[in-house]
Amino acid sequence: MLLFLDPGTDQAALAARLGDYGFHVHAHTYEGHTTLGLVGPGKAKAAELQALPGVRRVLPIQEPYKLVSRTFRPDPTLIKVGRATLGGSQMVLMAGPCAVESEAHIHEMARLVAQAGLPVMRGGAFKPRTSPYAFQGHGEEGLKWMRAAADAHGLAVVSEVMDASQIPLMLEYVDVLQVGARNMQNFTLLAALGKVRRPVMLKRGISATIAEWLMAAEYILSGGNYEVILCERGIRTFETATRNTFDISAVPVLKQLTHLPVVVDPSHAIGVRDKVIPLARAGVAAGADGCIVEFHTCPEEAMSDGPQALYPEELQQLARELEGICGAIGRGFARL
Amino acid sequence: MLLFLDPGTDQAALAARLGDYGFHVHAHTYEGHTTLGLVGPGKAKAAELQALPGVRRVLPIQEPYKLVSRTFRPDPTLIKVGRATLGGSQMVLMAGPCAVESEAHIHEMARLVAQAGLPVMRGGAFKPRTSPYAFQGHGEEGLKWMRAAADAHGLAVVSEVMDASQIPLMLEYVDVLQVGARNMQNFTLLAALGKVRRPVMLKRGISATIAEWLMAAEYILSGGNYEVILCERGIRTFETATRNTFDISAVPVLKQLTHLPVVVDPSHAIGVRDKVIPLARAGVAAGADGCIVEFHTCPEEAMSDGPQALYPEELQQLARELEGICGAIGRGFARL
Amino acid sequence: MLLFLDPGTDQAALAARLGDYGFHVHAHTYEGHTTLGLVGPGKAKAAELQALPGVRRVLPIQEPYKLVSRTFRPDPTLIKVGRATLGGSQMVLMAGPCAVESEAHIHEMARLVAQAGLPVMRGGAFKPRTSPYAFQGHGEEGLKWMRAAADAHGLAVVSEVMDASQIPLMLEYVDVLQVGARNMQNFTLLAALGKVRRPVMLKRGISATIAEWLMAAEYILSGGNYEVILCERGIRTFETATRNTFDISAVPVLKQLTHLPVVVDPSHAIGVRDKVIPLARAGVAAGADGCIVEFHTCPEEAMSDGPQALYPEELQQLARELEGICGAIGRGFARL
Amino acid sequence: MLLFLDPGTDQAALAARLGDYGFHVHAHTYEGHTTLGLVGPGKAKAAELQALPGVRRVLPIQEPYKLVSRTFRPDPTLIKVGRATLGGSQMVLMAGPCAVESEAHIHEMARLVAQAGLPVMRGGAFKPRTSPYAFQGHGEEGLKWMRAAADAHGLAVVSEVMDASQIPLMLEYVDVLQVGARNMQNFTLLAALGKVRRPVMLKRGISATIAEWLMAAEYILSGGNYEVILCERGIRTFETATRNTFDISAVPVLKQLTHLPVVVDPSHAIGVRDKVIPLARAGVAAGADGCIVEFHTCPEEAMSDGPQALYPEELQQLARELEGICGAIGRGFARL
Repeated sequence: MLLFLDPGTDQAALAARLGDYGFHVHAHTYEGHTTLGLVGPGKAKAAELQALPGVRRVLPIQEPYKLVSRTFRPDPTLIKVGRATLGGSQMVLMAGPCAVESEAHIHEMARLVAQAGLPVMRGGAFKPRTSPYAFQGHGEEGLKWMRAAADAHGLAVVSEVMDASQIPLMLEYVDVLQVGARNMQNFTLLAALGKVRRPVMLKRGISATIAEWLMAAEYILSGGNYEVILCERGIRTFETATRNTFDISAVPVLKQLTHLPVVVDPSHAIGVRDKVIPLARAGVAAGADGCIVEFHTCPEEAMSDGPQALYPEELQQLARELEGICGAIGRGFARL
Repeated sequence: MLLFLDPGTDQAALAARLGDYGFHVHAHTYEGHTTLGLVGPGKAKAAELQALPGVRRVLPIQEPYKLVSRTFRPDPTLIKVGRATLGGSQMVLMAGPCAVESEAHIHEMARLVAQAGLPVMRGGAFKPRTSPYAFQGHGEEGLKWMRAAADAHGLAVVSEVMDASQIPLMLEYVDVLQVGARNMQNFTLLAALGKVRRPVMLKRGISATIAEWLMAAEYILSGGNYEVILCERGIRTFETATRNTFDISAVPVLKQLTHLPVVVDPSHAIGVRDKVIPLARAGVAAGADGCIVEFHTCPEEAMSDGPQALYPEELQQLARELEGICGAIGRGFARL
Repeated sequence: MLLFLDPGTDQAALAARLGDYGFHVHAHTYEGHTTLGLVGPGKAKAAELQALPGVRRVLPIQEPYKLVSRTFRPDPTLIKVGRATLGGSQMVLMAGPCAVESEAHIHEMARLVAQAGLPVMRGGAFKPRTSPYAFQGHGEEGLKWMRAAADAHGLAVVSEVMDASQIPLMLEYVDVLQVGARNMQNFTLLAALGKVRRPVMLKRGISATIAEWLMAAEYILSGGNYEVILCERGIRTFETATRNTFDISAVPVLKQLTHLPVVVDPSHAIGVRDKVIPLARAGVAAGADGCIVEFHTCPEEAMSDGPQALYPEELQQLARELEGICGAIGRGFARL
Repeated sequence: MLLFLDPGTDQAALAARLGDYGFHVHAHTYEGHTTLGLVGPGKAKAAELQALPGVRRVLPIQEPYKLVSRTFRPDPTLIKVGRATLGGSQMVLMAGPCAVESEAHIHEMARLVAQAGLPVMRGGAFKPRTSPYAFQGHGEEGLKWMRAAADAHGLAVVSEVMDASQIPLMLEYVDVLQVGARNMQNFTLLAALGKVRRPVMLKRGISATIAEWLMAAEYILSGGNYEVILCERGIRTFETATRNTFDISAVPVLKQLTHLPVVVDPSHAIGVRDKVIPLARAGVAAGADGCIVEFHTCPEEAMSDGPQALYPEELQQLARELEGICGAIGRGFARL
């Protein structure tokens, strides 16, 4: 920790105080400004030190997260999801409907996912909705339908968990527990997910910085669950021409900071079908380990988020284009 | 609902489709662009209609929220909190520590709140923390201490509930259940709070639009709990000179859109002590019904958020200044 | 300047390189991370040092601006504008139309400003417009009309300069040269304004950080013109309920960082009449040295920005309320 | 134009007023809310109508821009830049130093651009700098050096114009006049560029919406200069892990809204070398017509923006990867 002092600060008094916290203090003066370097077993947080008289600024030298950091673990974490592996040499395309709509429909969707050669299906059984008056999902019944449909085609399943109380139920049916953007800092949920042994796909909060997102992942890893997949799905900015702003830069930034796999969700980032394909291509070109998109047999009739769902033939086209881009940047493309 | 059509759309086919949804359709053409006005019992949501071929844009005519709207209820909602009433002619200043730290300390804090003439005390027993390694609060024990301290001085108590499972416990001890910014769209929690009969202080999510915030309040009211207080506490913007950007405009905007009381929290908005007072003054001058600030007997030793806590004498000065501003704008100031 | 090094960096090579730049280097290691403190006459900028191999981060110890800083000049800069003084004990309310519309109209407006007891009038003769098809102002003729109208009532005049080529003309007619938000980083214009000896009111760019804004002011001061007034007028954020987000926190932040006077412009921040008054009150309560608002004899007929213009009687009410708030916070209110 | 009325508005009075403006009025009532559709030769702007009593909201039916719109001109505009064509089937990679540094250096840079097979070189002679104390460019001498260097290798030249007064000089030396992000709404400059017949590369303002950016382009086209290239270079958001947030979504959004070519500048968006390549790949994968990057013979010694400049061998690698991605999405890659 480095402290930058106000001019005229009583350094002796401050050093004594810092000694009480258990720090050894090294003072240096550059350009007429004094900085104190703290070493040793002291335990005060930056905010506490900031409150001390004369302290103008506190600069932590290390990142606040540890377990998720590349410094802590230089090699990439590989996470097995059904027949695919996230974080390795192959990019994984995942697809499915926004919500599980009916037993027959999810079976047809699973057939189409397998037909496109993709190893992982997504689908929501519990739906967080901005309005209390909107469709809230089929719950456990939806999970059962999706599991059976996926098993019939050898697919893995990703689905959202909305509350810690749902975890035991979800564990019976899904391969990856998704945490939605609105829950990224639901610390009760994160702590509970740290205690299970099942991969978690952690979506970025709509206004979360990359540092906060990594801290949220740290909550899960610090509980003992090391399999976390980070999913960029757009951030909130001033621009209103798109639903969110797809933060493509997050992909290379995360690949440098953390060993965890990074996935992109262009469907929720942009919210309109005809721009999902360009953004999916962009995400993969930027180095994402995976891409998760929504499609539907008939988007016009989807029970939620129809406007952003691809048509089945668009999904097949996307798979072909992504395979080509993977080739151009020296990467494989996971096939079922 | 109004639909704006793409040029060349097959209107007859679209009208037939809309008829299936239960809408009566009125077409008009302005400046060469066709719009369809939908009336009647049709039930499709904007997003579904957006997915229909030829529909360029869907414009809902009514706001998505109902119960929270001034249109629904023109008179202000008055919420009794201990000896004070929020939403009426008197502005209410509330104060207390970030976290309940010890039995002795919260008693001393209650004494200082009463001494400053203020009717409501705040204090956290469960603390949501960005880092899994930080102090997480004293839990039920803290609630007990705070209740006893408040009762000794005739104060009401505001404290944060982090999870639906904590509600029964909180109801035994607190007068106002606070929902933190990170939980503003925790719909499981909001739905549970709709079922209790205790005022809720709903903080604005750090990147929530005013419309989303009102929709979150609607979740609570739609469950039957009509006593919701809205609390502005800063939004996330590009500016890094302050922790958040205190959205002062939200105060007059909300007073126009909703009948619910509006409160400001300058401490969390700005995060540094010496700017809390100017911002508290600004919030009251803009028309807030209440103001909630953090103070501490000794901010340097606070267990959390010390840098933003006022000194006891600053709290007294603030109370005097706010009383003067209330006078200048024709408003009363609530005294214990 | 402090440099934070990547682990494993060749320190000797780096130190040699830094020596070539003219720096003396002091190395320290905290928590296993090495930092280099640079002192002496070296001249490289942060960005250049950042490019050196092994340099993870460069931290300038001093703020990039000098002349505008409170450190450089602890006492407030007082700027005389007609009969008022900005930056001193009295808060100055300034008012006028968005644009000078006609000779008769600006005379009537000047009469109303004086009648409300206000010492400074605003009005635009050159109008920057988002659309190339909108009204662009009356130019020099408008300036003449406004000068005569102001002189008839003893008022000072603030008006916008859009381009360096207009400066000589403006100097004949106006007391304060206003730089609009879109021109805040028009460095050609800023440099030219540094060479004149007339107060400049520098509006904050719609997405300018406070640091960038102060650097823009530094451009003017570094040319020798020390009379710069900073004007907060709203920043761009994700919120769409208001035209801009009025950054009220900027007022106390600037009062701490700089000796220059700080003014607020609630009219442009919010864009709708009925919220201008609450925000003007908030700005003054937060400690602004001045407040500039638009009003109009008949806002419905204003040639530009009518929806945000106050009615004359609202201006008088605002003046009374602001005088009351000034009293509550121990400040005077400038009267003509 | 559609007007949405407040409940209880005096429609007859309002209709009479709108008739005075020259509008024919059609009233409709949906869900108890009245809307007025305006047709005919009326000329009031949205803001004026918004100011009328009873008008809750004004909704322009048409986009505010005309000449830049795909509706106005469905076919893509092709702009010839030296031996390349922007906006057609081939994607154009452009490269060069941030600033022209010396005669010898720009000759070496031109040689490397040609060696990489690229048809267009960039380089700044006038540099807008946030600090008044930073290197401001070599001016006309730099332009001469760059022109000669480009001619020696058959390259076209892109360089920034900072002020309308520099245009005649620039026209002697450069093939494309670049407008920097800070000048995107310098309307004096835009109007002057409308009068020349030379392609303009208009960078997006750091907080400009896509609609504002297109309006800025409209300024140029409305003057008679139809050759405008739009360049996305990152927007300002809350995220601080990157210098700006590269708005990749802008690429497909613009390709839909306008016929003008769209280019990406990942170097300025991200600001650090090792992430320029992933973002350049992303931009091309998203459908950009061109990509402009900074490189340098020795980035550590660059006079400005060295940390974001690629090494010459990285430029060659990027060219190869982009050619591969173009192939995967059915597009050509322009070679010198």
